[in-house]
Amino acid sequence: MIPYEQLHQLINTEIKNIPFPHQPRGLYEPIEYTLEGNGKRLRPTLLLACAQGCGLNPKKAINQALGIEMYHNFTLLHDDVMDKADMRRSRPTVHIRWNECTAILSGDAMLTMATQLMAKEAGKHLAEVLEMFNRTAMEVYEGQQYDMDFEQRNDVAVEEYINMIRLKTSVLLAGSCYIGAIMAGANKHTADALYRYGVNLGLAFQLVDDLLDTFGDPKTFGKEIGGDIANNKKTWLLINAMHMEPKKIDAYLKIADRAEKIEKVRNLYKDLALDDKCQSLINDYIQKAIDAIPEGISPEAKLFLHNLAVQNVSRQK
Amino acid sequence: MIPYEQLHQLINTEIKNIPFPHQPRGLYEPIEYTLEGNGKRLRPTLLLACAQGCGLNPKKAINQALGIEMYHNFTLLHDDVMDKADMRRSRPTVHIRWNECTAILSGDAMLTMATQLMAKEAGKHLAEVLEMFNRTAMEVYEGQQYDMDFEQRNDVAVEEYINMIRLKTSVLLAGSCYIGAIMAGANKHTADALYRYGVNLGLAFQLVDDLLDTFGDPKTFGKEIGGDIANNKKTWLLINAMHMEPKKIDAYLKIADRAEKIEKVRNLYKDLALDDKCQSLINDYIQKAIDAIPEGISPEAKLFLHNLAVQNVSRQK
Repeated sequence: MIPYEQLHQLINTEIKNIPFPHQPRGLYEPIEYTLEGNGKRLRPTLLLACAQGCGLNPKKAINQALGIEMYHNFTLLHDDVMDKADMRRSRPTVHIRWNECTAILSGDAMLTMATQLMAKEAGKHLAEVLEMFNRTAMEVYEGQQYDMDFEQRNDVAVEEYINMIRLKTSVLLAGSCYIGAIMAGANKHTADALYRYGVNLGLAFQLVDDLLDTFGDPKTFGKEIGGDIANNKKTWLLINAMHMEPKKIDAYLKIADRAEKIEKVRNLYKDLALDDKCQSLINDYIQKAIDAIPEGISPEAKLFLHNLAVQNVSRQK
Repeated sequence: MIPYEQLHQLINTEIKNIPFPHQPRGLYEPIEYTLEGNGKRLRPTLLLACAQGCGLNPKKAINQALGIEMYHNFTLLHDDVMDKADMRRSRPTVHIRWNECTAILSGDAMLTMATQLMAKEAGKHLAEVLEMFNRTAMEVYEGQQYDMDFEQRNDVAVEEYINMIRLKTSVLLAGSCYIGAIMAGANKHTADALYRYGVNLGLAFQLVDDLLDTFGDPKTFGKEIGGDIANNKKTWLLINAMHMEPKKIDAYLKIADRAEKIEKVRNLYKDLALDDKCQSLINDYIQKAIDAIPEGISPEAKLFLHNLAVQNVSRQK
């Protein structure tokens, strides 16, 4: 057994070992650059942890783990083009460092490489792994589309928001867990339970992101506090406030001074107890994730998945 | 047997029957729009023709045929963003009709849908079909990257150009033939021969495109003659002229007046007999394609593939 805390290192080592063709450099260099970024490797870690928890040597699912990480990084690359984001993980994004054509084309190649890795040495699990991977990928695009649609709308329901983050973020964590289980030959009951674990972990994860962006500790939070408010980003907090105090929030969002705007909106959130309500919702999802952890996996895997969920609630980014 | 001339209609009917989810419209509507375009359906037709020629009911390979057409349309969609092209098949491109974010995201979804279709009902051929599809997709990106690289270079060798169009255009035709054969359970010898047919057909196809853009009949050629010259596009003709008469071509390409520039460059091509040389090269590739048609397919399929190659030489777009 590989200690669960070391799965992360195994992934980083294997990412460095992915063989890239030497030519054309313009296509492959941006892909290597993107993968070098100091990511959390959460999705491939989940995949390997679930595979090992279901009795497989995690090295036997390493290609699928790399495939999930490749896919995740592809979505970040194309999202950065769509959002016109200049920086990612403290480095210039690909469309800034190179250009937009490069970012589009190298991203396309990453999606195909992700599919190649998913299929590699999948053996008899090929059809099932691919089906989950492709279905998940479609859901991620749907989530991204809803996210863009919501920016143009002022009547987004809270349930619509939760569905959007489920698609955009959670299903990829859930799919990672599921594919790890399938590669290990786990039964449907166990694989489905691990999928539910991933969905609830992902929902909690995204809501913690929303909460920290507004209420995080500026000392430990990686970037400036209040970015979501400044950009009128439709988060769980804003959508709830728009339903509870539409006139006030409308007025505050029009404030030109950035610091004043953030202050006013944050205070309104507090007056409406949205920080506590969001934290309480996060705790619910964490509890659902923990409850979903199935009996049929190893005690070490249970502990690892449990701790991962609990740590997520208390993280400061 | 479905008459080979009717395969095209079968594809058009089945494309209309692809079930798209109703929501989010912003993701799926541009995909339907792209597929509605009046394309030649050459790649899926080749796939079905080869499948039927190797003894399979072409309806049994319809998903793979739709997958190839979906992939091809995905590349056109993203290429149009990269080239900033406003029109495609007489209609506004997706990034013009909607916007660039939509074009990127809907394209990504088309690539995943193409993979889903490739895998659908592939049965025992799944691994082999996917391997060829993914390898071909990677080569297409490499070809597109070389094409972009060449626009920045003045020392492109003729062999490099041929290799670029092989990657960008030919391998997808070749892969279509190969996947059709594999779906029919053809032996490796037959599948490889059909692959060679597709490669050579594709090379001839692209060179005919190059030739017609400069020497086509304005009455029958769909768009204005001379676009490649006006845009300094590195075609087979220009690359050869740059090697044979570097100073002259350099001077002519700087002519500001569009009509005069086209006239001068075209006359230089004629003086260098590049029109005849290009036609002769096309004939060579057509002959190679015809020579590659394997014994092990039906007489009707042989005739269809033969005619397709011959018609290609005399086409006026």
